[in-house]
Amino acid sequence: MEPINDEYYMRLALELASKASGQTGVNPVVGCVIVKDGRIVGVGSHLKRGTGHAEVHALNMAGSEAEGATVYVTLEPCSHYGKTPPCADRIAEARAARVVIAASDPNPQVSGRGMAKLRAHGIDVTSGVLEEESRKLNEVFEKFITTGLPYVTLKTASTLDGRIASKTGDSRWVTGESARAAVHALRHTHEAIMVGAGTVQADDPSLTTRLPVPGIHPVRIVTDAKLRLPLTAKLFSDGLAPTVVLTTEGADRERFKALEAAGVKVLACGDGERIDLKLAMRRLGEREISSILLEGGGRLNGAMLEAGLIDKAVLFYAAKIIGGPEAPGLFDFGGFARMADAVRLERLTVETYGDDICVTGYPVYG
Amino acid sequence: MEPINDEYYMRLALELASKASGQTGVNPVVGCVIVKDGRIVGVGSHLKRGTGHAEVHALNMAGSEAEGATVYVTLEPCSHYGKTPPCADRIAEARAARVVIAASDPNPQVSGRGMAKLRAHGIDVTSGVLEEESRKLNEVFEKFITTGLPYVTLKTASTLDGRIASKTGDSRWVTGESARAAVHALRHTHEAIMVGAGTVQADDPSLTTRLPVPGIHPVRIVTDAKLRLPLTAKLFSDGLAPTVVLTTEGADRERFKALEAAGVKVLACGDGERIDLKLAMRRLGEREISSILLEGGGRLNGAMLEAGLIDKAVLFYAAKIIGGPEAPGLFDFGGFARMADAVRLERLTVETYGDDICVTGYPVYG
Repeated sequence: MEPINDEYYMRLALELASKASGQTGVNPVVGCVIVKDGRIVGVGSHLKRGTGHAEVHALNMAGSEAEGATVYVTLEPCSHYGKTPPCADRIAEARAARVVIAASDPNPQVSGRGMAKLRAHGIDVTSGVLEEESRKLNEVFEKFITTGLPYVTLKTASTLDGRIASKTGDSRWVTGESARAAVHALRHTHEAIMVGAGTVQADDPSLTTRLPVPGIHPVRIVTDAKLRLPLTAKLFSDGLAPTVVLTTEGADRERFKALEAAGVKVLACGDGERIDLKLAMRRLGEREISSILLEGGGRLNGAMLEAGLIDKAVLFYAAKIIGGPEAPGLFDFGGFARMADAVRLERLTVETYGDDICVTGYPVYG
Repeated sequence: MEPINDEYYMRLALELASKASGQTGVNPVVGCVIVKDGRIVGVGSHLKRGTGHAEVHALNMAGSEAEGATVYVTLEPCSHYGKTPPCADRIAEARAARVVIAASDPNPQVSGRGMAKLRAHGIDVTSGVLEEESRKLNEVFEKFITTGLPYVTLKTASTLDGRIASKTGDSRWVTGESARAAVHALRHTHEAIMVGAGTVQADDPSLTTRLPVPGIHPVRIVTDAKLRLPLTAKLFSDGLAPTVVLTTEGADRERFKALEAAGVKVLACGDGERIDLKLAMRRLGEREISSILLEGGGRLNGAMLEAGLIDKAVLFYAAKIIGGPEAPGLFDFGGFARMADAVRLERLTVETYGDDICVTGYPVYG
């Protein structure tokens, strides 16, 4: 039996938040649980940008029972008028006695103000309960709100010798079913998915989310410096999700216009031979794409790593060895001369999915 | 608290066997525990080829207390006269009441005979207690006794993108201290270590076992098809352990003689351009080398994998990405054209050593 304490209720609030991952856009996921005299009297979750915050849903459910109750919320209640009125005021109006918070607002502009406001209303405030879990749930929001740049999660699937396909290009399949199912869960929880033109040419993928239940399709981003992909590619023609093409100023104007006429958003990023990926991330952030799942081939993965743009790496390894120096590798860029200069991954975790291994870590750029 | 039952005592016997790994040569490791009226009255372990078996040591310790006792032994007692008299007779002479065995003798010539002999003496016999653990301890012995070929354990250390060095050849260090310590434990428990001439040219290693306590140095095997390595290489001159060179019939006779004169054993394996690795394994087996730790570069690892000669793979991954298609990979051979033809690893286990990950598996050849 789990001991019943602040963490017990906060864990439910975190679970409520977690399950809404992928459906709140640039907003954080937040869960709330209201407890009065040992009974849960309200639960809530922020479900969609522009609609009620978690606290408001939970207070509505609790009604008059909120008086004297404890409000568990995974993120500091807001103190300012945004698309909704400040939650800190709403909690005070409901006469809650105590508020328990997992993490403060990562937005440095408002961090701590919600707590101050609650305290000014005479409410007892405890913070830092399961803080790490809450911050991990909102790592995307934390980056976006502080930098305006999308959070990039790299996902790869390779053999144990680090090859994403055989020397002939065969990659069906590297990993097994349960790893592939996990990838679709990643697509569901990211706002956009990003691949290179080479992947589209080779596989003509739809890049949709395929789950045993309905999933959310991510915006599809494809890098195509020369705009060489045909309009018949599924990404441009299947209408299953919006598609954004990243290209360069030098790309053919006619093709540019044809794509836009087909409903594809084309962003010219830099006037070099190659796409200016840093600029591209800024442009995508401006379009409120706060998270990207990078499913590139070796060249795109390598370029993104070299530019320091990968925030998190989710590396699946199938328990097999394909061999061959010509078999395409995970990161196809110049590479570092010294082992000491390699990009280190920190906070490593290892999981297994069927016969496959999944290594997750956060790159540290030197 | 661990429940006290047959497995309780067998676990101690397995521990006694396990710790002698690396010191019994072509013989299996075996542990024995004798229990009488709830007290351990004797323990033993086979420590060195040609000296007493585990049962004999334990019976000697037990003396007259062995009468009516239960003998726990990790491997079926022998029934034949080898370098020592049959243990099954010795157990019967001591009037033990019961024998509990983990695994039967893997040698098909004698398997089951020890148990039959014990039963013929009127002793109660139970077998199969922690059988899998015992068989795993003697996987080397099992292969050698049934095929006459050495058991080959591949050990690699690479980045997460499967590179054993940077593009400039820098490999100091890929993994951290605790992974490197584990490698020295592997050297201690293998009879021989095998590398390619390229590794000797690049690093001039001594390939000894460096532990915080005295370790056993493995026989050093180096592949050198053209006998191009200089006599001044540490392997040939430091005298720390015997060295065997694998080469081809076409190698220079003068160099061949010079190496032999320096105390190095040279084995010519095949008359092709490349060393016939299958023949080499046979020749090494004839020399009673029952286990080899393969610490090759990509080419030797690839050739051994392609020839189906790797029995077990111990793959260390450092939590970093070095990049670069020219950075040397784990297995440098032609490679398989189709992902479905890749060599699969079964019975996979994953461990962590500090910041490094260790994946262990057994290749399945198609």
